[in-house]
Amino acid sequence: MRHTVNDQTTPIAIVGAAGYTGAELARIAAAHPFVEVVALFASERANNAAVRIMSDIFPQLRGVNDLPIHAACVDAILECGAKVIFLATPHEASAELAPALLAHGLIVIDLSAAFRLRDAAAYPAHYGFTHPSSSLLAHAVYGLPELNRAALMQADLIACAGCYPTSVILPLRPLVNARLLNASRPVIVDSASGVSGAGRGATAKNLFCEVSFQPYSPLQHRHQPEMRQETRLDILFTPHLLPLDRGIVSTIHVELVPGVSESVVRETLGAHYADEPFIRLLPEGVWSSIAAVERTNYCDISLMVDSAHNHLVIASSIDNLVKGAAGQAMQCMNIRMGFPETMGLLPIHAVGVVS
Amino acid sequence: MRHTVNDQTTPIAIVGAAGYTGAELARIAAAHPFVEVVALFASERANNAAVRIMSDIFPQLRGVNDLPIHAACVDAILECGAKVIFLATPHEASAELAPALLAHGLIVIDLSAAFRLRDAAAYPAHYGFTHPSSSLLAHAVYGLPELNRAALMQADLIACAGCYPTSVILPLRPLVNARLLNASRPVIVDSASGVSGAGRGATAKNLFCEVSFQPYSPLQHRHQPEMRQETRLDILFTPHLLPLDRGIVSTIHVELVPGVSESVVRETLGAHYADEPFIRLLPEGVWSSIAAVERTNYCDISLMVDSAHNHLVIASSIDNLVKGAAGQAMQCMNIRMGFPETMGLLPIHAVGVVS
Amino acid sequence: MRHTVNDQTTPIAIVGAAGYTGAELARIAAAHPFVEVVALFASERANNAAVRIMSDIFPQLRGVNDLPIHAACVDAILECGAKVIFLATPHEASAELAPALLAHGLIVIDLSAAFRLRDAAAYPAHYGFTHPSSSLLAHAVYGLPELNRAALMQADLIACAGCYPTSVILPLRPLVNARLLNASRPVIVDSASGVSGAGRGATAKNLFCEVSFQPYSPLQHRHQPEMRQETRLDILFTPHLLPLDRGIVSTIHVELVPGVSESVVRETLGAHYADEPFIRLLPEGVWSSIAAVERTNYCDISLMVDSAHNHLVIASSIDNLVKGAAGQAMQCMNIRMGFPETMGLLPIHAVGVVS
Amino acid sequence: MRHTVNDQTTPIAIVGAAGYTGAELARIAAAHPFVEVVALFASERANNAAVRIMSDIFPQLRGVNDLPIHAACVDAILECGAKVIFLATPHEASAELAPALLAHGLIVIDLSAAFRLRDAAAYPAHYGFTHPSSSLLAHAVYGLPELNRAALMQADLIACAGCYPTSVILPLRPLVNARLLNASRPVIVDSASGVSGAGRGATAKNLFCEVSFQPYSPLQHRHQPEMRQETRLDILFTPHLLPLDRGIVSTIHVELVPGVSESVVRETLGAHYADEPFIRLLPEGVWSSIAAVERTNYCDISLMVDSAHNHLVIASSIDNLVKGAAGQAMQCMNIRMGFPETMGLLPIHAVGVVS
Repeated sequence: MRHTVNDQTTPIAIVGAAGYTGAELARIAAAHPFVEVVALFASERANNAAVRIMSDIFPQLRGVNDLPIHAACVDAILECGAKVIFLATPHEASAELAPALLAHGLIVIDLSAAFRLRDAAAYPAHYGFTHPSSSLLAHAVYGLPELNRAALMQADLIACAGCYPTSVILPLRPLVNARLLNASRPVIVDSASGVSGAGRGATAKNLFCEVSFQPYSPLQHRHQPEMRQETRLDILFTPHLLPLDRGIVSTIHVELVPGVSESVVRETLGAHYADEPFIRLLPEGVWSSIAAVERTNYCDISLMVDSAHNHLVIASSIDNLVKGAAGQAMQCMNIRMGFPETMGLLPIHAVGVVS
Repeated sequence: MRHTVNDQTTPIAIVGAAGYTGAELARIAAAHPFVEVVALFASERANNAAVRIMSDIFPQLRGVNDLPIHAACVDAILECGAKVIFLATPHEASAELAPALLAHGLIVIDLSAAFRLRDAAAYPAHYGFTHPSSSLLAHAVYGLPELNRAALMQADLIACAGCYPTSVILPLRPLVNARLLNASRPVIVDSASGVSGAGRGATAKNLFCEVSFQPYSPLQHRHQPEMRQETRLDILFTPHLLPLDRGIVSTIHVELVPGVSESVVRETLGAHYADEPFIRLLPEGVWSSIAAVERTNYCDISLMVDSAHNHLVIASSIDNLVKGAAGQAMQCMNIRMGFPETMGLLPIHAVGVVS
Repeated sequence: MRHTVNDQTTPIAIVGAAGYTGAELARIAAAHPFVEVVALFASERANNAAVRIMSDIFPQLRGVNDLPIHAACVDAILECGAKVIFLATPHEASAELAPALLAHGLIVIDLSAAFRLRDAAAYPAHYGFTHPSSSLLAHAVYGLPELNRAALMQADLIACAGCYPTSVILPLRPLVNARLLNASRPVIVDSASGVSGAGRGATAKNLFCEVSFQPYSPLQHRHQPEMRQETRLDILFTPHLLPLDRGIVSTIHVELVPGVSESVVRETLGAHYADEPFIRLLPEGVWSSIAAVERTNYCDISLMVDSAHNHLVIASSIDNLVKGAAGQAMQCMNIRMGFPETMGLLPIHAVGVVS
Repeated sequence: MRHTVNDQTTPIAIVGAAGYTGAELARIAAAHPFVEVVALFASERANNAAVRIMSDIFPQLRGVNDLPIHAACVDAILECGAKVIFLATPHEASAELAPALLAHGLIVIDLSAAFRLRDAAAYPAHYGFTHPSSSLLAHAVYGLPELNRAALMQADLIACAGCYPTSVILPLRPLVNARLLNASRPVIVDSASGVSGAGRGATAKNLFCEVSFQPYSPLQHRHQPEMRQETRLDILFTPHLLPLDRGIVSTIHVELVPGVSESVVRETLGAHYADEPFIRLLPEGVWSSIAAVERTNYCDISLMVDSAHNHLVIASSIDNLVKGAAGQAMQCMNIRMGFPETMGLLPIHAVGVVS
């Protein structure tokens, strides 16, 4: 049942394998014909934890990925034989690890926020640490393939877009580019995310009996500056916790330039994303839901316009662990390695590849 | 175990007993020392259904309310001996039933929207029917006790506030009254409700495996005109379906008059609701959740201000079946009948009443 | 809104207030007209935690119980003025605290297993500690009111029945007493419990994203000896974790003495529990569910017999935090203090008591 | 992105496409490199429904399967060009459709129970209809690949095993074959299933707010005779409804022949399933859960023995829509068509196939 490395196969390593994003990377990689997971690392328990087996932590991976999880020190990562390193680590850990990995010619795909913001001063303000490798910020490529494909083809350091930002930037950027939005007004974004977005830390707020639907950190969440950077809009962002494992719906309220109709908005988005395999623009009257995107790499976009108010409401949905994290990272890798972009990510099998 | 009617006891009837709101009325009434449910009716199956027992439909009510459910014809209601009639019926049914009940001197507490809007023209536009008793619209008292207590004391026709509107009007009205809000800007309301809000109809969208988090009817929901009427604000309302049985959180975005600080907002709401038993203004940094209000008659209000944007974000929460329906109806009845307002509704027993 | 202590009111204290059972005790006590919670204690953080407010931990209790939680040392408990002490503490803590409290004349209602088993040797075997006050085991009264009411009236140390055992003993004991069961065959019990049964510890297995339906500790759970002691049957018990907050359903398989029919079983249980306010024997074809007992003190019992196999299957359900813990403890207290047994526990208000 | 039919591709049709099993077949087929869904049919609305699009009913399939759903008449199915017909239809519909399809040389893979039982008399007794094509019962091959692989290679009518039976037969049959079980004692099976097992009918019991954990049809479920037929054991089966979308855990209690140890049981199952790609025998102390098998074709088996009672408890888990229905059907098809058995079903990509 286990595949074997062959000439086509790219060896990869996952750092931060004991978290939900790391597990999702392992799950997706197992179905990818051109990658081989050669090593797993966990950064947090670097020096004191006994070696554990991936499938002991994540029982769904038994028989799928039974590799040991090693302590995440730079030397071990360099020696594991991987050419592409996925960092599913905390921001500080990514910021510490990336320079050495890059210096040794590895491709680094970072799922943390360590290299997403171009302004180094934003890190102490929003992430609580002084960036130890801020010179790399200009070098990193923001990992949102639909908007950044060309740059990703040659990137060595990919800073995958955040989960909430992915759901917000994808519908807004084409409208910003087309100058359809009244950029002088704040954009209101109310998002809701499944609990896996909070990570796997054993804290009281993530306990089964404590999770409830409610907002948290309104107007102060770390993803707000990332959304503003990538849309150049004055976004006011309020996330909500949703009693589900996974999934994000973002409801976005924006004022249109006077006279812009719903059909113009639809045509602009439709034209921009016509050839994108992972963007689904939903027909009028159908609204994005978590069920429709769960465990897929799709981003669904739905919308309507209240012409009397020049008001556009958009609802976009993704799976926070897939298009919001591991799936997007794999999509970025596919682009970087020259693989078909949907490889390992689409429910529809690409026959051309296998026959 | 069953209580017996005594001189203090008011006989009540519930029309629409086979729905979730009807069941919740029965549950609350069972714990109310001064009311006796003397009859149950279901309007929809008026002429053709066999008599059913309440606790056969709602097994949690076994031993609590085992009354038969009768066909809801006016004559049967008039003859059942109740003095107060709760209408947990569809809008059209309430509009049809109320005039005859009022004509016979009964007190009618309507949980539908049939008498909430003062403008008869709004019914064909938003509810799809021409109001058959529109002359009563001016007579009805809007059933939101915290804002309308004096009028409720003498009302014969009480139009209980809707679930979403309750969660939106309660935090906004005191701020409107104090002229703290920039009324020239639309107010954005994104609400999420548990599935019981959709009623007990056996339709595909309410099936366990079909419910998912998603918006529905954005900017077009029937409760939008009700919110606008009661706040005199230009509200843009987007409801969301939440995969939970019950509960509503409304996240409200509003622009403040320049210079209004968070402490002024807090003081205004705090002063207005200081003596209200069912309003809880949460301290800074604590946000409304469904868990905190589930199965209670509380409305929790939380908020923060982004001074740079003059932006106020409010999150309010209620249980849609209690403060959003049956509990509020019972609170209105308590006021109307001269009972202590919290009777049957508070987790805290009022010792003075019973000893 | 707050009640005041009057002559009728019994002052109580809750030790272990920071757990789910402690919170449920506080919730129920708030609705009880004859008790006053005078103090809260948490045993685990005895010496090093800052004083916290109950409603900061449990937001649903804001305005209901806003008392501080003190460190649970014996002296503080003795001085708080309570006459009845509820111990919602770990087994060892209860075993340590009870002797001193009893020595000072307090009534101790223990919700742990510290005093449930009569055989001191069972504690090291099943609970992992040598009992420090084993001489009290013979003195303690097992707190299952329906089977032990007379003894509870004079008990000073009440060992409330466990959650799973309550659901299993209540349907079985009358059948054992009537000699309807083939006691030579093992009884198979498969139970499922909501996650609150696992307590409020912040461990990975209780995280929202980790909880799944599955068995745990089959044939080895601590409640198996308790069930065997109280039924005198050879029970083989397998609990299952259920992705719900609360509730237990126990499915019980037992061989009948040849010739015992379903109607004999029904009549035996029906006669035994005819006057019990909290036992509901469900009619043929209706099966116990969690929804029907959630947030109530009821135990629902349903059953059928396969005559060809002399096989009786019973499904019983309770709310693990109410009839399985806090509600049952309050019911025991009502009996001990001479209050009406259903006081504070029934959805139906007993008019005779209050007027 | 869409695959095109090539020489390797087998055209298939799904009858009963509007149900949950039909949708799961469409989802799995989309990822299968050697099949092409050429037509969808829905049997229930055969004559009066307008043509609908698959992805309008199941929004997760947008872009994956956007085919129209046609009325399921025999002629239309025969003309659609499919060589393999999946019947995800009610029992009666399958029994009616199969003979004509077989007569025209098509391969029929039936997911209903219409051809599972060998005794025609069982159909009126357990399924409420007289079998219209009972002569085919001897011809049908029971579709449980791990126990029936050779026969499936040449079957034209495959009667896929039921969901509950799959979870029960897989762990028990090797133990029966090895004569480790005391067949004179009844075997107790308590299973729990997610709500999709009840189908997509819009009935009150499947509404979001009505679903609760509870047993149903104990000792009388239709799957009990199927389990008995395939294990030759006297099974007493009690299913439970689980408030989850999908997944089954079966907890099985069986008496061992005296002297059979846990290691003998483990070795027997381990040897029997050593080379099976979809059976995972879990190590001691790890118990089957729904999370571990959700959306996979795995059957997880866990167990322990209480030697003092010669008692074996097994917990097995599957996804009822995958290994319990659509995945198993596809696995059967792979065997029948000579494709690699795991094609389209394993998270791990089989490199040998694609390179």
